[in-house]
Amino acid sequence: MRASRFFISTLKEAPSDAEIVSHKLMMRAGMIKRLGSGIYTYMPMGLRVIRKVEAIVREEMNRSGAVELLMPVVQPAELWQETGRWDKMGAELMRVKDRHGRDFAIQPTSEEVVTDVARTELRSYKQLPVNFYHIQTKFRDERRPRFGLMRGREFTMKDAYSFDRDLDGLKKSYQIMYDAYVRIFTRFGLQFRAVAADNGAIGGSGSHEFHVIAATGEDALVYCPTSDYAANMEAAEAIAVDTSRAAAKEALQKTATPGKAKCEAVAELLQLPLQRTVKSIVLAVDNEEDASKKQIWLLLLRGDHELNEVKAGKIAGLGGYRFANEAEIVESFGTPPGYLGPIGTKKPVKVVADRTVANMSDFVCGANEADFHYTGVNWGRDLPEPEVADIRNVVEGDASPDGKGVLAIQRGIEVGHVFQLGTAYSEAMKATYLDENGKPQALMMGCYGIGVTRILGAAIEQNFDDKGIIWPASLAPFAVVLCPMGYDRSEAVKAEIDKLYAELQNAGVDVILDDRGERPGAMFADWELIGVPHRIVIGDRGLKDGQIEYQGRRDTAATAVPLQEALSFIQSKLKD
Amino acid sequence: MRASRFFISTLKEAPSDAEIVSHKLMMRAGMIKRLGSGIYTYMPMGLRVIRKVEAIVREEMNRSGAVELLMPVVQPAELWQETGRWDKMGAELMRVKDRHGRDFAIQPTSEEVVTDVARTELRSYKQLPVNFYHIQTKFRDERRPRFGLMRGREFTMKDAYSFDRDLDGLKKSYQIMYDAYVRIFTRFGLQFRAVAADNGAIGGSGSHEFHVIAATGEDALVYCPTSDYAANMEAAEAIAVDTSRAAAKEALQKTATPGKAKCEAVAELLQLPLQRTVKSIVLAVDNEEDASKKQIWLLLLRGDHELNEVKAGKIAGLGGYRFANEAEIVESFGTPPGYLGPIGTKKPVKVVADRTVANMSDFVCGANEADFHYTGVNWGRDLPEPEVADIRNVVEGDASPDGKGVLAIQRGIEVGHVFQLGTAYSEAMKATYLDENGKPQALMMGCYGIGVTRILGAAIEQNFDDKGIIWPASLAPFAVVLCPMGYDRSEAVKAEIDKLYAELQNAGVDVILDDRGERPGAMFADWELIGVPHRIVIGDRGLKDGQIEYQGRRDTAATAVPLQEALSFIQSKLKD
Repeated sequence: MRASRFFISTLKEAPSDAEIVSHKLMMRAGMIKRLGSGIYTYMPMGLRVIRKVEAIVREEMNRSGAVELLMPVVQPAELWQETGRWDKMGAELMRVKDRHGRDFAIQPTSEEVVTDVARTELRSYKQLPVNFYHIQTKFRDERRPRFGLMRGREFTMKDAYSFDRDLDGLKKSYQIMYDAYVRIFTRFGLQFRAVAADNGAIGGSGSHEFHVIAATGEDALVYCPTSDYAANMEAAEAIAVDTSRAAAKEALQKTATPGKAKCEAVAELLQLPLQRTVKSIVLAVDNEEDASKKQIWLLLLRGDHELNEVKAGKIAGLGGYRFANEAEIVESFGTPPGYLGPIGTKKPVKVVADRTVANMSDFVCGANEADFHYTGVNWGRDLPEPEVADIRNVVEGDASPDGKGVLAIQRGIEVGHVFQLGTAYSEAMKATYLDENGKPQALMMGCYGIGVTRILGAAIEQNFDDKGIIWPASLAPFAVVLCPMGYDRSEAVKAEIDKLYAELQNAGVDVILDDRGERPGAMFADWELIGVPHRIVIGDRGLKDGQIEYQGRRDTAATAVPLQEALSFIQSKLKD
Repeated sequence: MRASRFFISTLKEAPSDAEIVSHKLMMRAGMIKRLGSGIYTYMPMGLRVIRKVEAIVREEMNRSGAVELLMPVVQPAELWQETGRWDKMGAELMRVKDRHGRDFAIQPTSEEVVTDVARTELRSYKQLPVNFYHIQTKFRDERRPRFGLMRGREFTMKDAYSFDRDLDGLKKSYQIMYDAYVRIFTRFGLQFRAVAADNGAIGGSGSHEFHVIAATGEDALVYCPTSDYAANMEAAEAIAVDTSRAAAKEALQKTATPGKAKCEAVAELLQLPLQRTVKSIVLAVDNEEDASKKQIWLLLLRGDHELNEVKAGKIAGLGGYRFANEAEIVESFGTPPGYLGPIGTKKPVKVVADRTVANMSDFVCGANEADFHYTGVNWGRDLPEPEVADIRNVVEGDASPDGKGVLAIQRGIEVGHVFQLGTAYSEAMKATYLDENGKPQALMMGCYGIGVTRILGAAIEQNFDDKGIIWPASLAPFAVVLCPMGYDRSEAVKAEIDKLYAELQNAGVDVILDDRGERPGAMFADWELIGVPHRIVIGDRGLKDGQIEYQGRRDTAATAVPLQEALSFIQSKLKD
């Protein structure tokens, strides 16, 4: 490609609404252009990167045996009503009426449509397994679109859907996809981590997220550096800090803690470690049929721990909980929030202690009286043994659930998700196949997504410096840029760089020749901003000595390379 | 590709709602699957063809210097309001509101968005010309979606938009696109014709349609077999049948023609050729400010000719015309339709004669009195010389407007359109560049579309037989199919066909090996239906003689080919 025939449009400053580095750099490098909130035109430079992402995804999906099709963007509401998602998805689902007043959804994913394809196309066990995928425009009407391509409304996703006879088949299809994802993210050249994720429907290890590691990531990834254990924060199991409960040493005592409504303040006042305090979180579960049968729950966590809301929702009876309001708290505890505890509540409440709390002794908690806490609280003696559950987020240094070390935490950006769906969709939509006995059986489904356009943002969050983007070789819009010093002035420069350009093109190298006639400073700044991995400079001064200059995007200085070796030198760099 | 890892789903019968052959065959061949009215899932077999179309379009667009980007499907209404198309487009434009109640259009084309890109990105004459294109999902809420991919609602289009300094630049960009389209349709391997089309805004030869020739085409294409002249019916110029008017020979006479309201009936009654009769068409042009100033027009055509409504609308004063209703006709002519004519109207009407009518003498027309016609009518003598214009459709045998022969007509399917837009969009959206003097000038635009998914339908309408589709080599989902007789039974067959499969793959041939284990009859019927151009059969019987069988999709019988020459034989066939 010649730059004069391409479209390059860089900016010195990012627009003020660009909040994170990848958004700023993509705007500055002319990769995307904002059309509306969360809606972007992919400019020529950005589209090249998207196409490279898509090509890798497509190759590895095909290699895995998945079959590509293309499902429509505009999908009839009837299918979404069959699964109930028409109502469940709320405002995030973009809805549209046609000229006849019929309802349609603009696809955020395609479970319904692919299940509709499956229920008419997959008739016999002989046709299974099948994995259909497509790479298609999606729309989710996010409440607060932000971060450029990271949380846009219109985006490109690869979504795949596997159909199997049974759970064994699904587990095989799932593993094939998992392996394909590992190959895909490896080929991207990005540091990534697959973590177990919560999978309500099937349980077990039926869901993994693929994250690009980045300090700016929205998600906390939990892993054990000395084992294979890895999970996202929602799914990471928290083990009790102490393996058993010490014997009680202190007497129960009500202590004045005026104005100390937080565990930190109480610990400071009482000169105790925060780890001796217990905090109270009050939840409510409404009874839809009889509002008076509302159930109030008290969840107890160590003062320095945090509630894991997903884990709480999995406790029997706590499905669909909400946080209690102040009136409900006063009604059940006789006091407003700040001094709550499990001893002497005004009305009976269900108490759940986190595993760590269950092993504490001589602890501190609210006394259900303003400005007072209990100290020396002990289970069994001062209050009944609680229901025990894992309801907290893990923290660095926690024991790994596999017993093989301690946990570490790093930040990640979710770019892929593999999920064992089970038969939820196939049962709702009556998608069955006939088994060997001619008996209809629900198709066992898995679904597998990769956020194609989000990959761009994630790759940049992981790979940038103060000059701009640093694309991994496989994703760069161009692998090599040729920068002539005086393309229009020096015949020697023009001749040599045109020759090298032709050689690189013939060798199949994705090369761009910057024949725009920009000044060297502006030209170099553009390509550093755009993030092309390899740069060659050819000028009269070097040519006098038969030399050209090479600089890798991460190099701090240029290297002189003999002109004659230019092609082989670049090829060796591309192989690295 | 191995068929067992692909997804093949053929039908014996087409669904009853499939009206035309391409729709029926695409459904039967498992290329598309209906999701809703005018909305289709592109199944794996169909998607392969779409990808081949896209690849050819993309290569030739890039070769022409156009730059690919990708504009969003969901586009803010504000841009569409700037050009007025939000109101003008009516129900065909699919409109959607987001969660905040803001209006968006689902793109039917992208003039507004690309002009918005241009007005911020193109600042200087130095950046021109630029041609941006994308290949993207479109939606048009057709009143009556039909014919499968030929007139769907959701479809894929390549749309390109050129930006130039002035009309000279536009004409160059336009010619570059025209040439690229010729290359594209040539590479598709389809018989096509580029015809001049009506271009209201700029006039001249500022618009061409590209049609795939097919007997079932919706459009009539006019061309001169002995010259380059070609236009669509709307744009084809009709020359007067007689070059000059003969002298009057007959006297004007009112003749009773009871019950003969049509020219054909009058001609029969009077025993005259139909070519001696003139028919009257009454149009009305409303005056928006003053309804009483409505203007009634009388258009005169030879009895065997047909009105060209587009041409009529271009006559000064006839813009926005409508057909007059019966009350208006009675008011102006004193009689209901059937016996109308230019002589002795009740109120003054504007008369326009077609070029052919203007050169007629001694003709027959209605007498403005029920059951009576005039014969022997002559211009100048019996009524004033009329305003003359080309207002009819051409017919086969008309003189070509270039004077180089006579016109022929064939049917076509419009699959591409190149159009000199001018400054309509750039002026409405204030998209300007700065010229050498720093003065803002409106960007001069062209637009260029190819209906990617429609190409499939058009290719089939042109190429099919009673067995199924006959894809041109460049568009076929697979170039070659290998059919083993007993893949699972015969080790020799399996060994030889696996070897040939590997050789073809290594040679870069797009080959599918049918390892499904279907019976020969069903297997052959599938591939004839799907339309793969080249078929190789390997069986034990042939192998005994060291032979395999080749049959091209259009061949009536198979050819024996020595096993050793299989690869080179196929390669020579692919080169043809």
